[in-house]
Amino acid sequence: MRVNGEVADSISIRDRGFLYGDGVFRTMLAQQGKLRHWPSHLKKLQQDCRALGINCPAPEQLVVELESLLLTHSQGVIKLIVTRGQGGRGYAPPVAQVSHHAWDVFPLPEYPEAWRQQGIKLRLCDIRLSHQPRLAGIKHLNRLENVLAAAEWRAADIAEGLLLDVEGNLIEGTRSNLFFVRSGRLYTPDLSRCGVAGVQRERVLAWAVSRGISVEIGNFPLEALVQADEAFMVNSVIGLWPVQSFQRRRWNNFPLALEIAGYLAGAHE
Amino acid sequence: MRVNGEVADSISIRDRGFLYGDGVFRTMLAQQGKLRHWPSHLKKLQQDCRALGINCPAPEQLVVELESLLLTHSQGVIKLIVTRGQGGRGYAPPVAQVSHHAWDVFPLPEYPEAWRQQGIKLRLCDIRLSHQPRLAGIKHLNRLENVLAAAEWRAADIAEGLLLDVEGNLIEGTRSNLFFVRSGRLYTPDLSRCGVAGVQRERVLAWAVSRGISVEIGNFPLEALVQADEAFMVNSVIGLWPVQSFQRRRWNNFPLALEIAGYLAGAHE
Repeated sequence: MRVNGEVADSISIRDRGFLYGDGVFRTMLAQQGKLRHWPSHLKKLQQDCRALGINCPAPEQLVVELESLLLTHSQGVIKLIVTRGQGGRGYAPPVAQVSHHAWDVFPLPEYPEAWRQQGIKLRLCDIRLSHQPRLAGIKHLNRLENVLAAAEWRAADIAEGLLLDVEGNLIEGTRSNLFFVRSGRLYTPDLSRCGVAGVQRERVLAWAVSRGISVEIGNFPLEALVQADEAFMVNSVIGLWPVQSFQRRRWNNFPLALEIAGYLAGAHE
Repeated sequence: MRVNGEVADSISIRDRGFLYGDGVFRTMLAQQGKLRHWPSHLKKLQQDCRALGINCPAPEQLVVELESLLLTHSQGVIKLIVTRGQGGRGYAPPVAQVSHHAWDVFPLPEYPEAWRQQGIKLRLCDIRLSHQPRLAGIKHLNRLENVLAAAEWRAADIAEGLLLDVEGNLIEGTRSNLFFVRSGRLYTPDLSRCGVAGVQRERVLAWAVSRGISVEIGNFPLEALVQADEAFMVNSVIGLWPVQSFQRRRWNNFPLALEIAGYLAGAHE
């Protein structure tokens, strides 16, 4: 664990990340001493910092720290948090901001291998995501909606929960982005009012463009998922999980999902 | 500063308060070695913890720590944060939760004395509060909406920003609750879909009941404020500020607001 470049495992209780969730983060995968898709993660980190007016640490500094981490942790989940730093009492951001950042490393989660090939059980969450266009898409530290959603079930065989917005539109998983397929066309929810637009989602979209597969990004009702030919969830740690069951619907074949999974697992930047 | 009962100024970067804003807080006023309205703050802290399923520290423990703080800080702003504690990676709360808590102390903010008597300038914020009934009313650590709202202006003569919800209803200030008066009747926004229900708001409501003054809690448009006979903002640190100007509206007399201000400043529990 490192905080602001030093080996440390704690942060000031006056850090605005702690006080207000005033920061952003990345959850990334290290394999064989390398971080998967660092350029995409860095770009998204910079975008998210910009959206909140937080000074993102210099990429050169982050790379030096990351390389040092990878020397001792060649595989695992690497988390990077950037906050607005310290700022006294009060919500208003200080005029002169010095951001703080922290790295942490976790072992790879031990998900059943079957989830990659045979798909997962997906459940519908009760909590609905609120609409906040100013924060939508950003992977910020205000994650209580995700916490409440993930607290809704304990059954270990349910891999993920599906979140709708206040209007009942499909949005995402509690920690993943959603895609579905209908008649060879790819669909994924619009994330301009809520949700987190992840790096794997971007990679799937880029893959589709490169293959000439059309993608529709929009507001879709729950029925669109139930009627889909395939559905799958993606994030940087799990890669891709096809959906095997949701409510009373079962899927046994996911040719496009598995093709995309192969691409996501194989391609390096 | 104290963390989990020990003198400390930092918290683990694995604390869920830092990772997800998974916690709640209180901002309180110490005067002459005493904490104003501790029973109300404790009750609200316990309510907010319960709403998020966080184990609130034992009141006896909190009181011991508070008394110790007050010995060295007889006046100032005292902040208490309670988080769900440490919980590995992932949004789902751990089955066995051990909450963390932190105390911090700040000097009294130096607001112009005129704001109490002659009232404040209030401005309208651009950002609109999103509707999340599961989090509404709770003083939790997901405060990015407040941060973005407070970042909207720098002019020192503007004391507070007014927040509407996505439907344009009056909700609150960036760090205070709103009341307004019309024909001797008191009005304050409903906070069941967004906003923070503060302890001073509760005290004003209790005062009104004790005086037989009727209060309407509901959804009110911006025009209701502009047409009000008086308006005022309350929180535990500022007490009460009458509103002197908002947009093109000016108020010069606030008899009811000043009467309530006197009650809020004087009454002790």
